[in-house]
Amino acid sequence: MNDFEKEMKHMSQIIDNELINYLPQKDTLPLKLYNAMTYSVLSGGKRLRPILVMKSAEFFGLSYEKVIPTACGIEMIHSYSLIHDDLPAMDNDDLRRGKPTCHKKFGEAIALLAGDALLTHAFCAIASNYGIDGILPEAVIDIVREISIAAGGCGMVGGQTADIDTVGKDIDIDTLFYISTHKTGALISVATWAGARLAGASPRDLSLFKDLGDKIGLVFQIVDDILDVKGDESILGKPIGSDLRNHKNTFVSILGLEESLRLVNKLSNEAKDLISDYPNNEFFMNLIEFIANRDH
Amino acid sequence: MNDFEKEMKHMSQIIDNELINYLPQKDTLPLKLYNAMTYSVLSGGKRLRPILVMKSAEFFGLSYEKVIPTACGIEMIHSYSLIHDDLPAMDNDDLRRGKPTCHKKFGEAIALLAGDALLTHAFCAIASNYGIDGILPEAVIDIVREISIAAGGCGMVGGQTADIDTVGKDIDIDTLFYISTHKTGALISVATWAGARLAGASPRDLSLFKDLGDKIGLVFQIVDDILDVKGDESILGKPIGSDLRNHKNTFVSILGLEESLRLVNKLSNEAKDLISDYPNNEFFMNLIEFIANRDH
Repeated sequence: MNDFEKEMKHMSQIIDNELINYLPQKDTLPLKLYNAMTYSVLSGGKRLRPILVMKSAEFFGLSYEKVIPTACGIEMIHSYSLIHDDLPAMDNDDLRRGKPTCHKKFGEAIALLAGDALLTHAFCAIASNYGIDGILPEAVIDIVREISIAAGGCGMVGGQTADIDTVGKDIDIDTLFYISTHKTGALISVATWAGARLAGASPRDLSLFKDLGDKIGLVFQIVDDILDVKGDESILGKPIGSDLRNHKNTFVSILGLEESLRLVNKLSNEAKDLISDYPNNEFFMNLIEFIANRDH
Repeated sequence: MNDFEKEMKHMSQIIDNELINYLPQKDTLPLKLYNAMTYSVLSGGKRLRPILVMKSAEFFGLSYEKVIPTACGIEMIHSYSLIHDDLPAMDNDDLRRGKPTCHKKFGEAIALLAGDALLTHAFCAIASNYGIDGILPEAVIDIVREISIAAGGCGMVGGQTADIDTVGKDIDIDTLFYISTHKTGALISVATWAGARLAGASPRDLSLFKDLGDKIGLVFQIVDDILDVKGDESILGKPIGSDLRNHKNTFVSILGLEESLRLVNKLSNEAKDLISDYPNNEFFMNLIEFIANRDH
């Protein structure tokens, strides 16, 4: 494990430990609901989105510790989206990260409600970023608004709508870009932006980090599609070829493998160019490399 | 129609007209999703919760026009909760206010996503209350946090969890109070509080309006249960007796009709007592009477 990988692991462990502090306390809600929420949100994962929040805050001089509430809130939104996406009415998946999906474990009604509760509580976590020294109230309101736009109908939910609506249908590359930049990209992008916003970055830097987040999100999705074709199941921890079996439109199915790899290369170079002039760009440079070349 | 009823109608029409301004614009999300969201949230209803936001702001000297974004956000949360409650995995209802439920009209996946999008976008609407003259950023952050708590696992979603978990089972009165004060009461209560908070009401007044909202919410639910037994179908616009047929625990099934009516009387008197010293209490006095004696 190199230094970058150690840092990623360290940051993801911080989120693993902190999430519980920003969820409702166990005795304040029905136990079954609490268990379903924690089953899903505390079950690991890369924690990419909260790490982006923390590292972009740090990039602009604010300690990552000060944006942990927002980082946890964004991870709750990611977790809710996985629970709802797995439901029988949607992708109807039985397994997630090798474990039964939330509705397989707790039933459909509780899974639906656990997703609702995680999404709702995310905004409580985000709002609780106010009151931490150095965080302006206007910045917290800005991120509430932008995160809700990125996660809602104009962002992630819109992308998921288009995705399920086009399964098994031929779509053009523009539609695939729409799905990818909304379903996956929007939350990754707003996470990258939110840390910078809380840190008081300038409008120019905010715009740049928005672009950076867009490119990171897109690279992440294209690599996801590539891994489904040429990944190693033992490293990936899930069977490959599921997109093809489920008649999903992917970058590989539409552009081909070679063109998809070329696009990853192009976008990750563009992402690196965006921050090449910043002296403290090491983590993000490594992160872009990592996302472009990841094997899981 | 008396003056109070005219005022209620006037206020509900304001919400009917304003909601569209706080939803995403039609061209910014998939049309099917937009149609499902607007089908549900623009389909009428009493608009009780947003009226409570507006009238409690007015009670404390702030023009109701200044809290319309929050009022609309709370109505979106109410609307999402109805969409998800109606889903097959939950109450499996085919009709809502005499029209096909969202999933009957658009399919389960789109209904689920429309609910998610309305819930998510509600926080965008609420956040957009900042920037209006006289509204403090701290107040907006406070209401984001309190509304998310009231709508989430510790509030509405928790109540719904307990409700579906106890259908057909014998429960005690404490459990029924838990379900009622959370599933229905929490959002009504926070709506009553939120207008006061945005208007800058004192901590004492905020506490009082929280109590007032709690009592209004409870009266509302008990009367709902009573109407299901002794309502007039032609006025109510829906068949009576559905709670009994669906083996729902209600105040009438547990306490009996007479005791339920007595409780409505007791709680509405307590609610009126809370505000009896305020010279400008006329609207809320009438509102309490209206909710306690409503026939629909």
